[in-house]
Amino acid sequence: MKAKLIGEGTQHLICTPLTGRTREVILTELATVLAKQPDIIEWRADFFQGIADSGQVVATAAKIKEFAKELPVIFTIRSASEGGEPIALTSRQAIELAGAVCKHTAIEYVDCELSNKPEDIVYLRQVAHQNNTKIIASFHNFDHTPQRELLQQKFTEAESYGLDVAKVAVMPKTLEDVLTLLSATLEAKARLKIPLIAMSMGGCGAVTRMIGGLFGSSLTFAVGQSGSAPGQMPIEELRTVLAIVHKSLDGD
Amino acid sequence: MKAKLIGEGTQHLICTPLTGRTREVILTELATVLAKQPDIIEWRADFFQGIADSGQVVATAAKIKEFAKELPVIFTIRSASEGGEPIALTSRQAIELAGAVCKHTAIEYVDCELSNKPEDIVYLRQVAHQNNTKIIASFHNFDHTPQRELLQQKFTEAESYGLDVAKVAVMPKTLEDVLTLLSATLEAKARLKIPLIAMSMGGCGAVTRMIGGLFGSSLTFAVGQSGSAPGQMPIEELRTVLAIVHKSLDGD
Repeated sequence: MKAKLIGEGTQHLICTPLTGRTREVILTELATVLAKQPDIIEWRADFFQGIADSGQVVATAAKIKEFAKELPVIFTIRSASEGGEPIALTSRQAIELAGAVCKHTAIEYVDCELSNKPEDIVYLRQVAHQNNTKIIASFHNFDHTPQRELLQQKFTEAESYGLDVAKVAVMPKTLEDVLTLLSATLEAKARLKIPLIAMSMGGCGAVTRMIGGLFGSSLTFAVGQSGSAPGQMPIEELRTVLAIVHKSLDGD
Repeated sequence: MKAKLIGEGTQHLICTPLTGRTREVILTELATVLAKQPDIIEWRADFFQGIADSGQVVATAAKIKEFAKELPVIFTIRSASEGGEPIALTSRQAIELAGAVCKHTAIEYVDCELSNKPEDIVYLRQVAHQNNTKIIASFHNFDHTPQRELLQQKFTEAESYGLDVAKVAVMPKTLEDVLTLLSATLEAKARLKIPLIAMSMGGCGAVTRMIGGLFGSSLTFAVGQSGSAPGQMPIEELRTVLAIVHKSLDGD
């Protein structure tokens, strides 16, 4: 089966994160994860011990891409303020590192948080697009679910910047928050041209990882070996549910 | 495992309908369905050829209850205007027949549509409660999903009549309708004391049969041998998804 990019096809694609701390651990993790046949791999480079060494990061990213073959790879440095591991880089340095990955590897996607400075986002967009890399513009809130209007605004911002995919991941405090996230996603899907990724986190929001595809999310994250955010489920279970959800759409 | 009544326990209970036209077919169907271990059985008596003969109906209901043993049984005459089979009885006659089932069998639940005349609903409530039978007050719309306020009003009406369970089943035209049903259910769950059953029908709403339990629905309908409404899934698939959904709630 040909590998799909985010937004291609009608199935909710499954992305599995890599969270190892060293190159060896990451490549072992990648082998484990590939055996479980995700659709996309995300390297969460903020977990990487060598994150401050651009050469090591680029070499490891290139190796991951090589091993992943035709499977698309996302390069992500999640900032500590949006749920990532604490690292020694400034946000500008992280942006430049993502730019280096665009320039020197065949990785298909880099993540860029919308909380970055506008000039940094524009810089990364230029480097990425010059190198045929797509940008996932992301917004995370690990504390609560902002109001529907703010969620919609985040989706819109991604498109306004000329970025390629919009991602919103927020923490629900109530099940009403879960419905708010789904409703905002549905509305943005109808309005915007770029693919969306949307989820409610934690146990309360885990159901959005299973049914979000119906409401306009193109990608869902699942655990291959280790999870990278609260509420992620094992890939095997998620795949089982997605197949049943997809089939149920044909119910008359 | 002890049989559960609607509203007991934290799991979304699974109800499987019987839709045979003759007593023999119904009892064979019951044997097939019982092997699949639903939590509750619903006899859709509007499918029964002998529906106009009270003696036959009561005898068949008693036999179903006998074979179902400790598993709770719902006796339902779904009116043609709410998605049932056309039958020769008036709505008053259908109410009296449900009353006879309360009086002469050990069946635990009878369904009563909220579209019945108020005096008929009150009559059935009296007969049912005198005979220790519970009433599921139901509202169906096979054409569309009414506004949130009307859905909430239907849940409320069931409790105002002093009935025991409130059921709302509606057809979505959009995924926003599906969210409206879930949101109205969540609100009613917080406000009312009686258990609720709620679902969006058809392929578009099928997901509510899987995740409705999170939003306050206590019972979901699945196909044992034959479905009785659009969007119902095979019991095996539904049980698989419910187990994963339930487990996912513990995600941190």
